[in-house]
Amino acid sequence: MKALAIDVGGTKIYNTIVDENGNIVANVEKHSTPKTFDGIREILMNIIKSHENEADVVAIATAGSVNNENTAILGSTGNIAEGYPKMDFMSLSSKKVFVENDANAAAWAEHIIGVSKDCSDSVMLTLGTGVGGGIIVNNKLLKGKNGAAGEMHFKMYPDKRRKCTCGAYDCFEAYASGTGLRKTAVELTGNPDVTTYDVINEVNAVLKHPETSGGISKTDILRTASDDKYIQAFLKWQDDILTGCIGLANLFDTCMIVLSGSMAEFVDIDYIEKELNKEIVTTYTKVRKATAGNYAGMIGAALLAMNVGLKNERNC
Amino acid sequence: MKALAIDVGGTKIYNTIVDENGNIVANVEKHSTPKTFDGIREILMNIIKSHENEADVVAIATAGSVNNENTAILGSTGNIAEGYPKMDFMSLSSKKVFVENDANAAAWAEHIIGVSKDCSDSVMLTLGTGVGGGIIVNNKLLKGKNGAAGEMHFKMYPDKRRKCTCGAYDCFEAYASGTGLRKTAVELTGNPDVTTYDVINEVNAVLKHPETSGGISKTDILRTASDDKYIQAFLKWQDDILTGCIGLANLFDTCMIVLSGSMAEFVDIDYIEKELNKEIVTTYTKVRKATAGNYAGMIGAALLAMNVGLKNERNC
Repeated sequence: MKALAIDVGGTKIYNTIVDENGNIVANVEKHSTPKTFDGIREILMNIIKSHENEADVVAIATAGSVNNENTAILGSTGNIAEGYPKMDFMSLSSKKVFVENDANAAAWAEHIIGVSKDCSDSVMLTLGTGVGGGIIVNNKLLKGKNGAAGEMHFKMYPDKRRKCTCGAYDCFEAYASGTGLRKTAVELTGNPDVTTYDVINEVNAVLKHPETSGGISKTDILRTASDDKYIQAFLKWQDDILTGCIGLANLFDTCMIVLSGSMAEFVDIDYIEKELNKEIVTTYTKVRKATAGNYAGMIGAALLAMNVGLKNERNC
Repeated sequence: MKALAIDVGGTKIYNTIVDENGNIVANVEKHSTPKTFDGIREILMNIIKSHENEADVVAIATAGSVNNENTAILGSTGNIAEGYPKMDFMSLSSKKVFVENDANAAAWAEHIIGVSKDCSDSVMLTLGTGVGGGIIVNNKLLKGKNGAAGEMHFKMYPDKRRKCTCGAYDCFEAYASGTGLRKTAVELTGNPDVTTYDVINEVNAVLKHPETSGGISKTDILRTASDDKYIQAFLKWQDDILTGCIGLANLFDTCMIVLSGSMAEFVDIDYIEKELNKEIVTTYTKVRKATAGNYAGMIGAALLAMNVGLKNERNC
């Protein structure tokens, strides 16, 4: 069995073919996401027309929350063309079409073929410009009553009033995202022009020229430069991620917290795991980086569409 | 089928008989919780010896996290006799013995016979001296990899450094509990002797003599007394509960948040529901007070022990 997998994001649309083992078995094609509903629909129809004969099902990973029937988007999606959430995905192919939120799909890919594949319970955080999330409870995606569960919009500092992309204030996303790191750096330096890259470049510079050396952690090295405001911002951002992970570990008693996305590579995972397990009241929780790759969303949507799951047992 | 239901708390142990419909069908007996392991074990053995012939199973709701096999406590329990978590519950009766965390059990009682009985997904918060929690996902208790899930220890103000009973700082419990209300009132008044009752008495006084009247909410009335530091503390406490509920609604896309416990009666539920639904990115979430009563822990443990559950369908 094979799936035509499509990932619809705010800036790019990708497509490829995925088999039942989660292998990508065709070229990955890339398109810019059109600014209009009709433009997006035309690209989706062209992709499906060209490739549906190579697959048994069509699996779409998309921005936005997806209903429990995996047929349609719930509510709005932020940075995609107006009207896109009303897309009638089911009409795009005569074959079965299956839709899931991109972060949920990526969490499923980690659960089946990635770093959390031996875990019945895991929470994946995608740290990029924003923060996405996907939660696995006892080998099933946590979807909630309508399918919108897994939104990482719990508040971090309810009295700070930092605006979040969701329209509310002070959500985890507003602190733990790349944008959050930039805002923290702007606050600490007083310079409104600081970028996320400025901070990351400084972090990399300090890590290349540590004042101390030998067997100490990245976080320990960075702490030797604690009078550097960029480094302070980075360490605060990392601790904000830690804080969110502690809450998630206490709520879910999950086997593993998986960090994915472009910003995850800068996080000192060992530090997060060590500090988290000092604080939680549940049981030992692993923290790991994602391993299912950049196309995890397509792979996960394909595996879900083909009903590839693990046996319903606690296994970690 | 009937269960001998026992509730082991930090100060009292209760027991009664519960039928498959969740009805209490015998007297509720009450004992002070002994300070020693042996004392608790003796009371449990006496209860079971006296009443096990009236029931088919023994159902124990207890302080502390309980494993996924429902046989034993995980880790420590805080305010009960040292060694209690190592109790061999299974040896107490020749009949089936079933153990569950008290807040989880109470959440199950609400799910089967209480306010959330038409909900596939609900989150119950028990607001008392501390904060307990029980989470239902798709008609099942959320237990996590080892059974400890549902701990409401996500951080509210990570930079405030208010000590929590769990040993960490700034958890939801440290703000949303009765103790949290007292601490907030102490902070705002500068008076270390303020009690929770002082604040509640002041709230009741203002609500009896409102400066405005007619069709306005309790919260609106209290806001007319906003230069009263006790009232400020109360409103801040209520907003801290709201903040936690927003995060839970976004994580779980749950049908209903159920507030139970002695402190829940003071919360303006309509205010929480209205404000929560303005902020969340998931779908409309109800907020209600619990209705299964003071013995919900025993009822829920009994229903779980007798395998009384709802059909596995989304139904709200």
